[in-house]
Amino acid sequence: MIVVLAGGVGAARFLEGLVRVVPPKDIFVVVNTGDDEEFFGLRVCPDFDIITYTLAGLVDPEKGWGIKGDTFNCLDMLSRYGYETWFLLGDRDLATHIHRTHLLKKGYTIFEIAEDIRKRLGIECQIAPMTNEFVKTKVITKEAGELDFQVYFVKRRTQDTVIEVKFQNIEKAKPAPGILDAIESADGIIISPSNPIVSIGPILAIRGIRDALQSTEAKIVAISPIVGGKTIKGPADRMLQSLGYDVSPVGVAELYKDFLDVMIIDTIDAEYKKKIEALGIKAIITNTIMKSIEDKVNLAKAAVEAFKLI
Amino acid sequence: MIVVLAGGVGAARFLEGLVRVVPPKDIFVVVNTGDDEEFFGLRVCPDFDIITYTLAGLVDPEKGWGIKGDTFNCLDMLSRYGYETWFLLGDRDLATHIHRTHLLKKGYTIFEIAEDIRKRLGIECQIAPMTNEFVKTKVITKEAGELDFQVYFVKRRTQDTVIEVKFQNIEKAKPAPGILDAIESADGIIISPSNPIVSIGPILAIRGIRDALQSTEAKIVAISPIVGGKTIKGPADRMLQSLGYDVSPVGVAELYKDFLDVMIIDTIDAEYKKKIEALGIKAIITNTIMKSIEDKVNLAKAAVEAFKLI
Repeated sequence: MIVVLAGGVGAARFLEGLVRVVPPKDIFVVVNTGDDEEFFGLRVCPDFDIITYTLAGLVDPEKGWGIKGDTFNCLDMLSRYGYETWFLLGDRDLATHIHRTHLLKKGYTIFEIAEDIRKRLGIECQIAPMTNEFVKTKVITKEAGELDFQVYFVKRRTQDTVIEVKFQNIEKAKPAPGILDAIESADGIIISPSNPIVSIGPILAIRGIRDALQSTEAKIVAISPIVGGKTIKGPADRMLQSLGYDVSPVGVAELYKDFLDVMIIDTIDAEYKKKIEALGIKAIITNTIMKSIEDKVNLAKAAVEAFKLI
Repeated sequence: MIVVLAGGVGAARFLEGLVRVVPPKDIFVVVNTGDDEEFFGLRVCPDFDIITYTLAGLVDPEKGWGIKGDTFNCLDMLSRYGYETWFLLGDRDLATHIHRTHLLKKGYTIFEIAEDIRKRLGIECQIAPMTNEFVKTKVITKEAGELDFQVYFVKRRTQDTVIEVKFQNIEKAKPAPGILDAIESADGIIISPSNPIVSIGPILAIRGIRDALQSTEAKIVAISPIVGGKTIKGPADRMLQSLGYDVSPVGVAELYKDFLDVMIIDTIDAEYKKKIEALGIKAIITNTIMKSIEDKVNLAKAAVEAFKLI
């Protein structure tokens, strides 16, 4: 069993490769739910949905989220009822949130609902939301004060300077069923190339998960989401900088150093190998840019092979 | 103030004429909610929606319900999540049900929500759901036993023989705010050409409404939904028959005779004038088939003029 800690688009792209390298049934994804939000009374789990839509072959390949060819007629009509519609929920996409909200109302947990959705979409690897608690990432910004994550991320297009990140309700959050056991008994653990602060950060902040990563005998490999001083997608680079971390694979390694065995960095970042190894973390240099399916498969192979190198 | 008791398509077509004859602000519609149903956890009020969509110019003119040009992508995706999709909810239409459900969850009543929706859609006449209680019409059939109304009406396409009709929760239902006052102080009351059993029937079954109709000084005019022994739309003809009523304007007049002053019947049914007048109800003969907007306006004029004839 390989455990993958996952955010949204970067993780989904990596998983597209991994399911071609490892039998999907042997993959256990722990996905961030700190980005979750309610729109019009419907519960939306963006990172979970990005991963399921991607693995089900439904995702819009250009955007990396949403469903390809989706229409936006419901959203258009919702604006007539006075709703803000900056979070672009397509008509097909809305079915997922209607279904999820319906099951929540019936008393099912987010974990049980995730199992239902991924099975109905024909996905064989398990995808566990990090917790059943409604944890909400809050971003404190210089320009606009405290913002809900999606307001910062989508409505305000990450234009603000992040000076602090908080996870509301994190003290009540327990890991979803199976996560701690999976970490303990895994053959290997991969931290996907996701934002270390707001995608992997919430997972690590849940009581017991960081401890489990420190004590597991499984080897832990991370893929740097920072390549050449930038992120491929999203605000991780600016966020690391404004929070005082190095905008490099070294800055990411610092955040994971208490449990990380291997950091996979891009060839363009070969210069950081020594600094990472000075932290007691082995560095592997390869191409980490995932454009083609071959890129994704090669990166997944590099991650899986890294387990054997230690 | 003119009060109109209303079902779905027939009432909506009549109201399209009435708003051109009487200032819309002087119209108070009491609409059946016995057809209401929950689909995928969303509250749908078919008769209310048909009327608002029609008066807002949004309705699909062919079908008489739903929104013109609507798409069905959300419904298509909902079928992947295992839902039955025989109740055709379009993507734009779903926005109404999402909005309604969201407001219900926040604690608003169906009456308050109706006010919000009709105002946002720019409708000036008041449209009051008959009650805030979730009353559900149940149809007992010879072939399939007890059915939810929409299962009988949409899923099974009214193929079954109705032997009894019940209104679940009717004993708890109070008229929505303003209805009894409107009936008492109205200048005239119109029973639209809707199914007398399952569209007007639930309204009349609410505690206090039938009494108010009997005691008001306002004249009450009904338009027969039965023309030439048939209904224009829907199963009223077969339903009257299987329940033991005359399938004619006389059968309808019998159901309303304790409060009705005037029955408007179609020219094709002129032969029933005497039988209706034998019940103490004045009969007016005119064209009641509403194809063009002129037909609708003329029928509305006939109804309004009927108040002066008595």
